[in-house]
Amino acid sequence: MKQFSYELIHVDKHTGARTGIFHTPHGDIETPIFMPVGTAATVKSLLPSTLKELGTQILLSNTYHLYLRPGSEIVAQAGGLHKFMNWERPILTDSGGFQVFSLGDLRKITDEGVTFASHIDGSKHIFTPESVMKTEHDLGADIIMAFDECSTYGCDKQYARQAMTRTHKWLERCAKVHANGIQMLFPIVQGNMFTDLRIESAKFTREFAECGIAVGGLSVGEPSEVMYKMMDDIRPYLPENMPRYLMGVGTPDYILEGIERGIDMCDCVLPTRIARNGTAMTTHGKVVVRNGCYKQDFTSLDENCDCYCCKNFTKAYLRHLVNCKEILAAELLSIHNVYFLLNLVKGAREAIKRDSFAEYKREFYANYYEKNKK
Amino acid sequence: MKQFSYELIHVDKHTGARTGIFHTPHGDIETPIFMPVGTAATVKSLLPSTLKELGTQILLSNTYHLYLRPGSEIVAQAGGLHKFMNWERPILTDSGGFQVFSLGDLRKITDEGVTFASHIDGSKHIFTPESVMKTEHDLGADIIMAFDECSTYGCDKQYARQAMTRTHKWLERCAKVHANGIQMLFPIVQGNMFTDLRIESAKFTREFAECGIAVGGLSVGEPSEVMYKMMDDIRPYLPENMPRYLMGVGTPDYILEGIERGIDMCDCVLPTRIARNGTAMTTHGKVVVRNGCYKQDFTSLDENCDCYCCKNFTKAYLRHLVNCKEILAAELLSIHNVYFLLNLVKGAREAIKRDSFAEYKREFYANYYEKNKK
Repeated sequence: MKQFSYELIHVDKHTGARTGIFHTPHGDIETPIFMPVGTAATVKSLLPSTLKELGTQILLSNTYHLYLRPGSEIVAQAGGLHKFMNWERPILTDSGGFQVFSLGDLRKITDEGVTFASHIDGSKHIFTPESVMKTEHDLGADIIMAFDECSTYGCDKQYARQAMTRTHKWLERCAKVHANGIQMLFPIVQGNMFTDLRIESAKFTREFAECGIAVGGLSVGEPSEVMYKMMDDIRPYLPENMPRYLMGVGTPDYILEGIERGIDMCDCVLPTRIARNGTAMTTHGKVVVRNGCYKQDFTSLDENCDCYCCKNFTKAYLRHLVNCKEILAAELLSIHNVYFLLNLVKGAREAIKRDSFAEYKREFYANYYEKNKK
Repeated sequence: MKQFSYELIHVDKHTGARTGIFHTPHGDIETPIFMPVGTAATVKSLLPSTLKELGTQILLSNTYHLYLRPGSEIVAQAGGLHKFMNWERPILTDSGGFQVFSLGDLRKITDEGVTFASHIDGSKHIFTPESVMKTEHDLGADIIMAFDECSTYGCDKQYARQAMTRTHKWLERCAKVHANGIQMLFPIVQGNMFTDLRIESAKFTREFAECGIAVGGLSVGEPSEVMYKMMDDIRPYLPENMPRYLMGVGTPDYILEGIERGIDMCDCVLPTRIARNGTAMTTHGKVVVRNGCYKQDFTSLDENCDCYCCKNFTKAYLRHLVNCKEILAAELLSIHNVYFLLNLVKGAREAIKRDSFAEYKREFYANYYEKNKK
């Protein structure tokens, strides 16, 4: 599909970090990029116009949630997700796999697919590679994820292999029914925390990658060193000429470590979720806004930030809003947190162009993590 | 105070409706005007920048709530309510009287003031005319309301008189300690549903009105005819050369009936409260967005509305958001509802200038109430 292409701009001289442009039918994405998550066709509490002002280039939406509510056929009737939620820039939908596996006792996995009970009303459903492709076609995102099995962290190698093999077979089935010519299918590398499986999966998976490949099943509870090692191990086996997406990441350190290892895209609910709990990420580390120490703190959340929240409001006001459970607290902190991560990756892109990504990361860590420890 | 003045622009030839400009230290207010309510120093779910875009000229905030959280001294330290909540246009604070009387068993009224238990933590407090003036000075709104007793609808005449007399004495005490030269004190006419008391109260109260007078204790459960009669009865006794504020109103019909009787200002939580419950006011009447009939309705909420919500989203999407309890539902419906009422009074101002307010009201009713009945 010529509507999709990846243009490599520069690779950092001292690390694996790279910057480029991912061309899609709904516009260009500068990579590395962070994708805010709009689970139910809304990035919680943020207007699309606000998301644009923050510099959001692409967002992610969840197939599992949209399949259940409002139903993918409703979204299709609306003219697809872009029109339904009024977001004209690129969108990526996951496959719903991760969500249905997370249902625990409510789901059953077979080679055919996954039967599960809705977390909303207990109604029974089945996801198969074919049905998921259909659902993602209905939703109409630019990028659609293959249906995969993300095996639980801590499972034995035998199960990890079985899940990986199933993922590969499902990928073949996804690819077989996909090819609609307007959406890009991203295959997903699995293999749990076993290097040989990860490499085997990367080798298999890349054959299906036309313009984009994903790494799934990381950042699922394993120690960060294990995650970093997996990424180091598979990096040589991932194609260079397309975007590489690290799924479900995440925290500033995971984002930066991913970028250092050649990752181009990542996503996480973190910025909006912790915002709703009254927590902000700042250049000095996390700030729990609810804390009493901010009662009379009439300074901004982050003096290095020029988002709408930091330019116009004080910690004392934000604390008051959190304290009163005001919706505006979620909105203002979501604005700040999303901007913070978008700014983090923007800074990374600029640093890569200057061949100074390592320095950029070091400096960020010194401010975000070290100062916080004191 | 020369910072405050009321400029009468035009009186409708066929009704008592009038339009003018209320000049205040934080800017001009075109009257008649609707004031959105920002109870805890936030109009629930709306960014100040959004409120400005909607055309909000003045907003109201609640002394009772701010006194309890974050405490008026915190707001004073922040530089007043305007700075605290980042709203540079005019603000009006109520006296907290209505809220403490609403506490029922949790409060006790004496001539000195009202002792009450906080609805948040049960802690004991006392509001007196003097303490309320101090609190409203701390908050620093442009317009501050006198501390009054709003007697319950249905009380006997003896009690209504007692409450009115107390309100008058409290007004004298408010006036005595107020005069800070930068905030305008609005006295409040009470008298429950007794015409003679209302007239007596208007006569007493207007002596304290420098540039603004309020009518309290209406729209508290009485039949609308009773409310309209009270307004008709007291109208001749209200000063002409200053804004007249009908407190706690409200619904589109109450707003229009008030305007027809010479009212210049009104306020209500209605637009944002019903928004959070998934209900919208449209030119065709109320729309309960949650209703299943909108599941596949890909038209806007109100084709006659050009707010951000109506321009960009469908009923099907809004229903989906309400259904999923998404914060964005409250935001989008609040945007629409606040805009709707601001637009209603804007249309009224224009109609008054054309001497066609009665026609304007008739047409609105025909669309809003009659069509809805079918």
